[in-house]
Amino acid sequence: MIRIGIAGYGNLGKGVEAAVANAPDMELVAVFTRRDPAGVKLRTPGVPVVPYADLASYQGKIDVIVNCGGSATDLPETTPAIASLFHVIDSFDTHAKVPEHFARVNDAAEKSGKVAIISVGWDPGLFSLNRLYMNAVLPNGSDYTFWGRGVSQGHSDAIRRIEGVLDARQYTVPVPAALERVRAGENPTLSVREKHTRECYVVAKEGADLARIEREIKTMPNYFADYDTMVTFISMEELREKHMGIPHGGCVIRTGKTGMNLETNQSIEYKLQLESNPEFTGSVLAAYARAAYKLGQMGPAMSGCKTVFDIAPAWLMPTDGAALRAHML
Amino acid sequence: MIRIGIAGYGNLGKGVEAAVANAPDMELVAVFTRRDPAGVKLRTPGVPVVPYADLASYQGKIDVIVNCGGSATDLPETTPAIASLFHVIDSFDTHAKVPEHFARVNDAAEKSGKVAIISVGWDPGLFSLNRLYMNAVLPNGSDYTFWGRGVSQGHSDAIRRIEGVLDARQYTVPVPAALERVRAGENPTLSVREKHTRECYVVAKEGADLARIEREIKTMPNYFADYDTMVTFISMEELREKHMGIPHGGCVIRTGKTGMNLETNQSIEYKLQLESNPEFTGSVLAAYARAAYKLGQMGPAMSGCKTVFDIAPAWLMPTDGAALRAHML
Repeated sequence: MIRIGIAGYGNLGKGVEAAVANAPDMELVAVFTRRDPAGVKLRTPGVPVVPYADLASYQGKIDVIVNCGGSATDLPETTPAIASLFHVIDSFDTHAKVPEHFARVNDAAEKSGKVAIISVGWDPGLFSLNRLYMNAVLPNGSDYTFWGRGVSQGHSDAIRRIEGVLDARQYTVPVPAALERVRAGENPTLSVREKHTRECYVVAKEGADLARIEREIKTMPNYFADYDTMVTFISMEELREKHMGIPHGGCVIRTGKTGMNLETNQSIEYKLQLESNPEFTGSVLAAYARAAYKLGQMGPAMSGCKTVFDIAPAWLMPTDGAALRAHML
Repeated sequence: MIRIGIAGYGNLGKGVEAAVANAPDMELVAVFTRRDPAGVKLRTPGVPVVPYADLASYQGKIDVIVNCGGSATDLPETTPAIASLFHVIDSFDTHAKVPEHFARVNDAAEKSGKVAIISVGWDPGLFSLNRLYMNAVLPNGSDYTFWGRGVSQGHSDAIRRIEGVLDARQYTVPVPAALERVRAGENPTLSVREKHTRECYVVAKEGADLARIEREIKTMPNYFADYDTMVTFISMEELREKHMGIPHGGCVIRTGKTGMNLETNQSIEYKLQLESNPEFTGSVLAAYARAAYKLGQMGPAMSGCKTVFDIAPAWLMPTDGAALRAHML
């Protein structure tokens, strides 16, 4: 059994917990938290909740830590620290800062002889993988990524910070006409506005100025100003009834040309429809935790920081190469 | 530049030729054929057509041979033979015989210190890869593979062998209702007949007994008897006008459950729409030829037979890891 520790027990940590509970070859050893452990109730019986400060005391008892912190401030600090003690996986998703994060984690993991795999999930993660495979096979072409329909936590949080807002959910929605043009091989140039719309469901304080809230949302730079944004005010009851899920998904499409004179159209599409974004992301993290463990078993030459690009697909599976060739090829 | 040789110059060999012509880091050195070389006209200027018997004389001049022979009788013999001289890629597609083929190629490649990658293409190949990734991420679920709409060469050949038939094209077509049920997450159990229909366009000899030909097609065991099969007789002119392309495609879908009690639905779909099956397959082979070359550069420990499951995605790309992390993750 691969002995797993989870650092951080928010939605993503819970998703990893569920994935580990359903994996045939993994057991959850401990969950580490910066909160008061007494206030954290796991769903896996018999597993201790341990202060994050005591992580080092689990050396030799845990093979891989799945680090479920946030990308903004937590992972840049904790993933290198954990990599000096354990194999570690994270879901670092600030695309622009990946090279910097990679370098710091790689330094730590090379020194400790551990394996780290960063930016695991679906974007970055499975979507990145598919972009790479598509580009390798169709070097002449264009990539398109559409997200949704799904809840964006960052955009929901941005709305919640507006005065007079009690709660909110923001759905990112691909524009059907844009998707159709891409799928038809038209190879269109699409503006931000043409690709996605944003649907906001907002619970306002009693007596709040709804027109001002709507205006503040629609004109918010970076988050909403460049999009067609729909704002709907609803009651807290309706929010709780209809908008408590965390669905997401999307697709990566590459249309490209082959042939001596690039005269032939080819198209590849990869699509996710997820009822729960954190449970799915947690499942991806669990699969790559297995790969980190297997890489760790291969010896010190395999240590250091990796991304999904460096992981041979076979390492993600509990079965061996012969079984994979016989049953899955 | 990675120096490529192509063994066999049928549709697939031509597809590889086009992919190599459009790759930034590959050059075609020679095409090997069992036909009279004088009768083989390449589309790449200045490249020699060489008798297959002279393959060994190109040692040191070619890095990777892409073996474009047929799976039934050619590849089982030639891939191991080539692997004793060069790195080699093939598209062996007899799923049931993969373990046997793997063992023979692995023996040869381990002895010679070369890298061989077998069963490369889209099924087996990219579809297999996607089945594996989907299973790694969603261990609790069901896979569905649909092929088409596309030309099946094997089924077209089977019709051509019927007395009174001059030529024929057979299209494999997914049943839309079955696809819809799978995409809706119904997790249906589908018979062979419920998943695909077969459309046959047949040119008969003048005076041939059309009713008998149609009956022979529709009742042909393995190929047609288990399917709803449509037979349309057309003229040779119409066949040449409308059915000379070799389109194909299809999709792999996995619907699965996550959550502590497997209560959450998740769905992944991978879909290909190909105007030319051999050009696309040739492009996949070219990308894996690059991986074989890179593996070969890593030293003798990496020699032996591999499949797409063993190849880290990054090895398929001409760019290095840092560039991939910065631009594609």
